Amino acid sequence: MTQDRSIYLHDIPLDQAWARFVEALQAAGLWQPIVAEEIPVAEALGRITAEPVWAEVSAPHYHASAMDGYAVRSEDTLGATETAPLLLQLGTPETVVRPAQPVNTGQPIPPWADAVIMIEHVQPTADGILIRAATTPWHHVRPMGEDMVATELVLPANHRLRPVDLGAIAGCGHATVKVRRRPLVAVLATGTELVRPGDPLQPGNVIEYNSIVLAAEVESWGGRALRLEPVPDDRARIRTAVADVAATGVDLVLINAGSSAGSEDHTAAVVESLGELLVHGVAVRPGHPVILGMLDVGGRRTPVIGVPGYPVSAALTGEIFVKPLLERWLGRPADPAPTVEGELTRKVLSPTGDDEFLRVTVGRVGGRTLVTPLGRGAGTITSLVRADGIVRIPRFSEGHNQGDRVTVYLYTSPARLDGTVVIIGSHDLTLDLLAQFLAERHPEFRISSANVGSVGGLLALKRGHAHLAGCHLLDPATGQYNVAYVQQYAPGIPIRLITLVGREQGLIVPPGNPKGIRGVADLARPDVVYVNRQRGAGTRLLLDHLLAQAGIAPEQVRGYEREQITHLAVAAAVKGGAADCGMGVLAAARALDLDFVPLASERYDLALPLEHADAPPVQAALALLHDDGFRAAVAALPGYDVAHMGETAGEIGLVEGQAE
Amino acid sequence: MTQDRSIYLHDIPLDQAWARFVEALQAAGLWQPIVAEEIPVAEALGRITAEPVWAEVSAPHYHASAMDGYAVRSEDTLGATETAPLLLQLGTPETVVRPAQPVNTGQPIPPWADAVIMIEHVQPTADGILIRAATTPWHHVRPMGEDMVATELVLPANHRLRPVDLGAIAGCGHATVKVRRRPLVAVLATGTELVRPGDPLQPGNVIEYNSIVLAAEVESWGGRALRLEPVPDDRARIRTAVADVAATGVDLVLINAGSSAGSEDHTAAVVESLGELLVHGVAVRPGHPVILGMLDVGGRRTPVIGVPGYPVSAALTGEIFVKPLLERWLGRPADPAPTVEGELTRKVLSPTGDDEFLRVTVGRVGGRTLVTPLGRGAGTITSLVRADGIVRIPRFSEGHNQGDRVTVYLYTSPARLDGTVVIIGSHDLTLDLLAQFLAERHPEFRISSANVGSVGGLLALKRGHAHLAGCHLLDPATGQYNVAYVQQYAPGIPIRLITLVGREQGLIVPPGNPKGIRGVADLARPDVVYVNRQRGAGTRLLLDHLLAQAGIAPEQVRGYEREQITHLAVAAAVKGGAADCGMGVLAAARALDLDFVPLASERYDLALPLEHADAPPVQAALALLHDDGFRAAVAALPGYDVAHMGETAGEIGLVEGQAE
Repeated sequence: MTQDRSIYLHDIPLDQAWARFVEALQAAGLWQPIVAEEIPVAEALGRITAEPVWAEVSAPHYHASAMDGYAVRSEDTLGATETAPLLLQLGTPETVVRPAQPVNTGQPIPPWADAVIMIEHVQPTADGILIRAATTPWHHVRPMGEDMVATELVLPANHRLRPVDLGAIAGCGHATVKVRRRPLVAVLATGTELVRPGDPLQPGNVIEYNSIVLAAEVESWGGRALRLEPVPDDRARIRTAVADVAATGVDLVLINAGSSAGSEDHTAAVVESLGELLVHGVAVRPGHPVILGMLDVGGRRTPVIGVPGYPVSAALTGEIFVKPLLERWLGRPADPAPTVEGELTRKVLSPTGDDEFLRVTVGRVGGRTLVTPLGRGAGTITSLVRADGIVRIPRFSEGHNQGDRVTVYLYTSPARLDGTVVIIGSHDLTLDLLAQFLAERHPEFRISSANVGSVGGLLALKRGHAHLAGCHLLDPATGQYNVAYVQQYAPGIPIRLITLVGREQGLIVPPGNPKGIRGVADLARPDVVYVNRQRGAGTRLLLDHLLAQAGIAPEQVRGYEREQITHLAVAAAVKGGAADCGMGVLAAARALDLDFVPLASERYDLALPLEHADAPPVQAALALLHDDGFRAAVAALPGYDVAHMGETAGEIGLVEGQAE
Repeated sequence: MTQDRSIYLHDIPLDQAWARFVEALQAAGLWQPIVAEEIPVAEALGRITAEPVWAEVSAPHYHASAMDGYAVRSEDTLGATETAPLLLQLGTPETVVRPAQPVNTGQPIPPWADAVIMIEHVQPTADGILIRAATTPWHHVRPMGEDMVATELVLPANHRLRPVDLGAIAGCGHATVKVRRRPLVAVLATGTELVRPGDPLQPGNVIEYNSIVLAAEVESWGGRALRLEPVPDDRARIRTAVADVAATGVDLVLINAGSSAGSEDHTAAVVESLGELLVHGVAVRPGHPVILGMLDVGGRRTPVIGVPGYPVSAALTGEIFVKPLLERWLGRPADPAPTVEGELTRKVLSPTGDDEFLRVTVGRVGGRTLVTPLGRGAGTITSLVRADGIVRIPRFSEGHNQGDRVTVYLYTSPARLDGTVVIIGSHDLTLDLLAQFLAERHPEFRISSANVGSVGGLLALKRGHAHLAGCHLLDPATGQYNVAYVQQYAPGIPIRLITLVGREQGLIVPPGNPKGIRGVADLARPDVVYVNRQRGAGTRLLLDHLLAQAGIAPEQVRGYEREQITHLAVAAAVKGGAADCGMGVLAAARALDLDFVPLASERYDLALPLEHADAPPVQAALALLHDDGFRAAVAALPGYDVAHMGETAGEIGLVEGQAE
């Protein structure tokens, strides 16, 4: 929307962009660890040492008794035996011949003593103690410097301080410790359309949360974030806000967004007017319209990053550009992300010109580690929420084939992967509740679900990609649910069908049903726009079945080719006016205050390959089908029936004697 | 020191102790997740969700343009081709036949539109745009609910919030989020002997840092810590402090220490007088004198843990008892510690009655993962600082043999292990500096060093347990250093000797040399007490050599059998009055303001098996021998000579053509 487009946005490869940024930081003297500050030891948890810590005093700083007992001279104890006990008298070498002096654990032993006898091993007498064994020099004594000797290195520089480190620093005589100052990062959100979380929404409003994510990233990487008041898309006001905060001496400015080249994208111009625009556009996805620059305000150089507006791009721009800069300033790279090798469940094509950061989920099913790409849209923050990690597809690579081994840089702990129940198939609200109850009852387990429709789920079982598949597939020939489809799509695998719920299917229509839709016959009307489910979805099969019964060809249904992948997405399409109706469950209609035209009642089962029946997370998830709290929560959803929940609805592919 | 001993301290197994504690917590209604609090989303990083988060609004909450361009009806674009462009006019269906309306990324498309054409793909005209290709419905449109649909589950309960989670919560319409309140843990240090870190020290004073470590542990596990003013060993005052803080409603009280049964150990009596003493003594090491109890103050039940005073016991008591309690209250177990399997480098005997938590270092040498036990004394906080992890030796086990495979619960990231240079052998101050410089120059690498003497280091090379061995072994027959010993102790391994430093050895004596020691001859004097180094130490060999030359038998040297394992520990023994002299380097004497009687100058080499020469952390460490900063720092140490630093002093065991 602007003639500036060609002037500014010009993608360069990631490594070149980063090199140009580092060069500018070096020229400004900013590519080095940040100055130190001295803080009390008790406040230093998680901070990074800026200098080595050398022991100021030894620990212990005297010869200390390691036991409750008596300090003695070991030479005085020679000859003591069970049968010939020796008497040591309370006193000192000046007052008695064989002196002993009571000491508690941690107390100094007197200068004349060189050993301690435990209180349990002496027999008190009127003026001393009887001992029945000799002791050796330095027995039960913690010699001076046993733990730390004054002047020795206790901790190096660039060390992230853990609780025990604080103890060691204090224990060798320091009240304070020099740590790297936490870099201060200003985060400025720009955009006339922005509103605060929780505020009422008008079409076109955007809830501003990128600054929350960026600030939290900065904090989690050891910096401090300063979230500024958002500024509308007004070049002069953005320029003033950036100049003002740079002049206060922050270490880095993040501007989100306006980093592209549209009519309301002012970031590049602002950076150029306040310093140097180094990079506008990086060949990385998601992320492209990244700006890197160096402000020159008030005699001070301040690096600036223009962060793209799409939430996934914003969060990944933080990881790619902000994190390594903070690490450099803190003098220490973060511990590298754990990685895991796994097998891609789908082919992935990647543009050869870009470095791509592909979000994936990771599941362990029957001994295989399976890596499933998530949606690649930059607008879906939930794809990052659901991601277990990132697969990096470098520039010049065209992507990967299904079955390729790839390395995943994990966001989650590798151990969590083993506690994951992978459920692939048809979506149902009940699965959300199941995930919720599993997290509450068994925090060590979790559900990872992918919504690919009933047939997709059965194919996933066949490929060994899932523990459970959710399906509701009506066989018109028999009127029976699921059994025939399991035999067709997952042949040869012993599978148990376990009923999750009975549920009502129907047409979701706007409130008041303005087009007067009564049944499938109305879908052939030219004034009715339908919204469909994806191929393989049980709901779509049900529609096709009902259409065939009514003698209507799919071509007669307007919008038949427009697909959504969940019930709620269908309801949202109706709610938003994109369609006049779509098939789905009653609960989805109710959730968005829509009306509902009932068409059929159906059974939704979970298909369980028996080889996974003993996996602990699977057992925990299935046990919830008999949990009163879970059943009550499902029963409370409109249109749901829990009468048969948890019942075995069939066993398929079992050979003789295999059924339990 | 008290007759109460037998009454109270009675070790029970760890699992029984924990079960008794949990039972009491259950009876008090405290064995459940803690209540929630509602906080702004922007402040919720790292907190644990107390309830599921359901989408309040859809995201996007309208059909949004995914590109800068023009909103159109896809049906109007049918027929447009390169050769037959179509004209769309700016306007709406009410004003023009084929309407188009400019939209920026993120803006809502008008209700009549169902697609967006990118600005790059149109040619503006006076009253509209020319297009040269048809578009499909919903192209470049982000439909309502693409990211989140109102009412769907966004995050489950018991989830630790990451930066992107905050974005998702805000993005679906929440300004606040319900999270678990952080449990408040009071930490009370008791002891008349306690002083603050950095305060002047008298013998018997103990620097109080356990409360710092315990408080930092609590914070790192998601709680809040309240460090109280330390209280002297006065039963009434401790009782008052505990009762007062329990009455304020903290969730847990930690009393450190006084948890044993000595005359100044009041914790058990205090707990008994304010509630119920559940456990006094747990068969766990380190840790034994742990107290578990339930206070009943002001009508409120408050769990209390008496934490042992030894710093290692205190820190591990936190891990064993406080951490799982906090996890229960927060509704979520921490991600399990990463583990690694490795090979024990030493035999470990463990008492069968105890659960033992053995501190170990872990190194990767030539493809093997080597697990080396650290000192087992409960008083050395540095053994926890240096530990890479813990090996758990369960009750009824007698321990492990050298070479046994064991599981290590890591404190460090597994990836850090690969960046470790393992140096075993004689200690030298220069190695501390080397560790320090390596951490500064290469934060991704680190040195793990074990001080077992020169011969011990060469034996470690032979066993494949180290990358480098530090040695200074004089062959009296040839006057040559190290070569003969490498041949003897590490035969058949191609090894390069690289000189680290030349250094002065002599007798470390108290200031003013009160006993007038002039040389080894004086060590035979009955009034002179010597402190020795351990067997295999080069310094000890040098002494033995000098004694033999002087015709003195070891038996004639008082204190010959008393061993220290570093130069500084020898100096500390002299400083502390435990000995009149000991052999060591000048730098150690200077560090503790002691005098020095020079005896010999010696060469200290690093022995490098050539198979490790290419390991990147080893190369980084050896490169420092040519680093001006490092050389200057070593040269500044008294008695050190860097003239030959980094030079190859010999190559041993190479077959023809192997030398470089």
